Amino acid sequence: MNAVKNPYIDQLGPYPLAKMARLLADIPQPEGLPLIRFSIGEPKHPLPGVISEALAAAATSVNTYPVMYASEALRKAIADWLEVRFSPAKINPLTEVLPVNGAREGLFSFVQAALDSTKADALAVCPNPGYAVYDGAVILSGMQPHYVVTGGDAGIAANYAAVPAEVWKRTQLLFICSPDNPRGDTLSLDDWRTVFQLSEEYGFIIVSDECYCEIYVNGDPPLGALQAAAILGRGFERLATFFSLSKRSNAPGLRSGFIAGDAALLARVEQFRSYSGGGMNQAVEAASIAAWKDEEHVHENRELYRRKFEQVIPVLQEVLPVRVPRAGFFLWVDVRSTHLSDERFAQELMAAENVQVLPGTYLTNAQGGMDPGEGHVRMALVADIDECMEGARRIARFCRNLSAKQAFA
Amino acid sequence: MNAVKNPYIDQLGPYPLAKMARLLADIPQPEGLPLIRFSIGEPKHPLPGVISEALAAAATSVNTYPVMYASEALRKAIADWLEVRFSPAKINPLTEVLPVNGAREGLFSFVQAALDSTKADALAVCPNPGYAVYDGAVILSGMQPHYVVTGGDAGIAANYAAVPAEVWKRTQLLFICSPDNPRGDTLSLDDWRTVFQLSEEYGFIIVSDECYCEIYVNGDPPLGALQAAAILGRGFERLATFFSLSKRSNAPGLRSGFIAGDAALLARVEQFRSYSGGGMNQAVEAASIAAWKDEEHVHENRELYRRKFEQVIPVLQEVLPVRVPRAGFFLWVDVRSTHLSDERFAQELMAAENVQVLPGTYLTNAQGGMDPGEGHVRMALVADIDECMEGARRIARFCRNLSAKQAFA
Repeated sequence: MNAVKNPYIDQLGPYPLAKMARLLADIPQPEGLPLIRFSIGEPKHPLPGVISEALAAAATSVNTYPVMYASEALRKAIADWLEVRFSPAKINPLTEVLPVNGAREGLFSFVQAALDSTKADALAVCPNPGYAVYDGAVILSGMQPHYVVTGGDAGIAANYAAVPAEVWKRTQLLFICSPDNPRGDTLSLDDWRTVFQLSEEYGFIIVSDECYCEIYVNGDPPLGALQAAAILGRGFERLATFFSLSKRSNAPGLRSGFIAGDAALLARVEQFRSYSGGGMNQAVEAASIAAWKDEEHVHENRELYRRKFEQVIPVLQEVLPVRVPRAGFFLWVDVRSTHLSDERFAQELMAAENVQVLPGTYLTNAQGGMDPGEGHVRMALVADIDECMEGARRIARFCRNLSAKQAFA
Repeated sequence: MNAVKNPYIDQLGPYPLAKMARLLADIPQPEGLPLIRFSIGEPKHPLPGVISEALAAAATSVNTYPVMYASEALRKAIADWLEVRFSPAKINPLTEVLPVNGAREGLFSFVQAALDSTKADALAVCPNPGYAVYDGAVILSGMQPHYVVTGGDAGIAANYAAVPAEVWKRTQLLFICSPDNPRGDTLSLDDWRTVFQLSEEYGFIIVSDECYCEIYVNGDPPLGALQAAAILGRGFERLATFFSLSKRSNAPGLRSGFIAGDAALLARVEQFRSYSGGGMNQAVEAASIAAWKDEEHVHENRELYRRKFEQVIPVLQEVLPVRVPRAGFFLWVDVRSTHLSDERFAQELMAAENVQVLPGTYLTNAQGGMDPGEGHVRMALVADIDECMEGARRIARFCRNLSAKQAFA
């Protein structure tokens, strides 16, 4: 008798938050200080009433099977939103928009449906640091991730210029995250020109994850991939962009997002999803339509983040070299001045101040003896402003106490 | 430049209903007769208020990410339901129950997570006729389905006894559908003993799809796989059972079901789903808890089917050899007495009476020159009793007119 076992699952690393939970499990919580989590990127601002009301009002509509590709009303609401947000891009709601049950399901289904895992040496290029679902989906489809260290002043074009042609030739898919997790960096039009040229030359598909695109602090919305394509006079061939209501609309439980781009690719993804069970609950669909049609709650949400960043970052900057991110709600903080490793920083901060941060190496892969997560931690400023301010003050106190101790040592 | 393309998607056949839509597309609808669909297995009885009310009441709860494995409350409600329905089985809600977003998503995720597609000659044994998602999931995971013709008076043990050891040795997974689609046949305790013995001998995993188990007409609930395992003193190793609220509770849009069985397998499926995006919307979760805790609507639903079957089947039996199914809401009807092929029967019935039925061969695969769907059509008695009676009368009229015409020819 043989035990049947999918070998790819054993190749997956532990999920970053599971790894952190183990790292911090045995640390006694300091008395009198309630736990503050800067570790988890879960939106905490209020759920907009427009979403919960539409969801409740449509509760009786789940008496039929969902239609393929979701309703035309939802696809139209999404296409309208895209055309306003990413002008001059023009989007066909019938063929260039595919609603999905959250960006994670969309990314996973897309990777499974788009790639050819029968090619033994095929690669997908993943950003390092990056979201665990990118390389997870690649590994589970039986392919290999190839990590490229992203970030730094030289920009993404320089990151990719260093990738050998030999790698690009085997590349079926390139993951872009813009604004990225964890840095909040975004691609410029020149960056997109570089990426599109590489895709032209080597034929790979571009996945552009833009889930954080509505959270920006300087009044200047990040450029989108569809928008860059339209400006550069390029169509959407081999381009798929991913969006979610989780961050834009503080509705992570809704499980609603969409893919937009290359119609031929979307048709194949939808064929795949008719087997994988991707149909969207009609009440969720109604709530999603209401959400994409409403910008007021998005403005309010952005304003909450803006005020929070404005007040919290200076407190942290007193003790650590914190860069104001271009977009998103994460800070990617260099803690090397504390002489602690990323894990050690997380443990000691927890022990002293009951504040959780995510060790940088939990989001990265070591390459050639170098790990871009070393000496870094990720802080998610998702809680309300008072809690974030309290967390920042505790981190500042922790760093000051630490440097005082180290001065005595 | 290479175009990237997943080759497995091209191996999928068209979905049965898409194929039927094409077959019937150009047939003019007869005047004065509204369309009646016996073709689609979509529950049409009323959505229970207990579900829509719980869904609406929980609409504000989608402001956080879903927890892994869904909430303990949902797993507990499911385990309680299982223990009552499938006594003497005992179910650990923490490890032996995994809520999924509909049985389809569950089946697909399970196949992807459980099987080892790196074994080049590995097979999954699928019933013929059977649900398109069984072999679809197998094909998309890069493996091969092996079809076994099921049904007939000899029973399932005889069906499987005819499968060569050479096939079983390569088999990683066996799909069982009980009550089955389309016949409504169920496995007896002896059948389960045979299946468990085969699994012991060859080590394959058993998927038992029991989505139709609550729709039975003779007051005698079908035996479940977990129940059979408990009665036979066997644990749940290599056994996974699949359930859904779509049929039991007329909530196909809710997208809620669960897998129960082998804890080690479920843990791997949940690890897979943490990447594939299987988290359940909390409002859906609340509605599911309410649904599994309530049996009154299930009794009412069953009674609606019972009365319908009692009245509709005799009308059909006047012209066709219709067998009363053990469970489920389908009739698998032998139409060879009409001298029409399954497709031709569907076309002529549509042209004459505006009633849609599904050609049998759309649910089957030809094997060795024989196709078990030939000369059969599937009728889904899902609409209300008046519509089903009207459809049955039209079918009776169609068959009588046909035999009158054939007598003159």
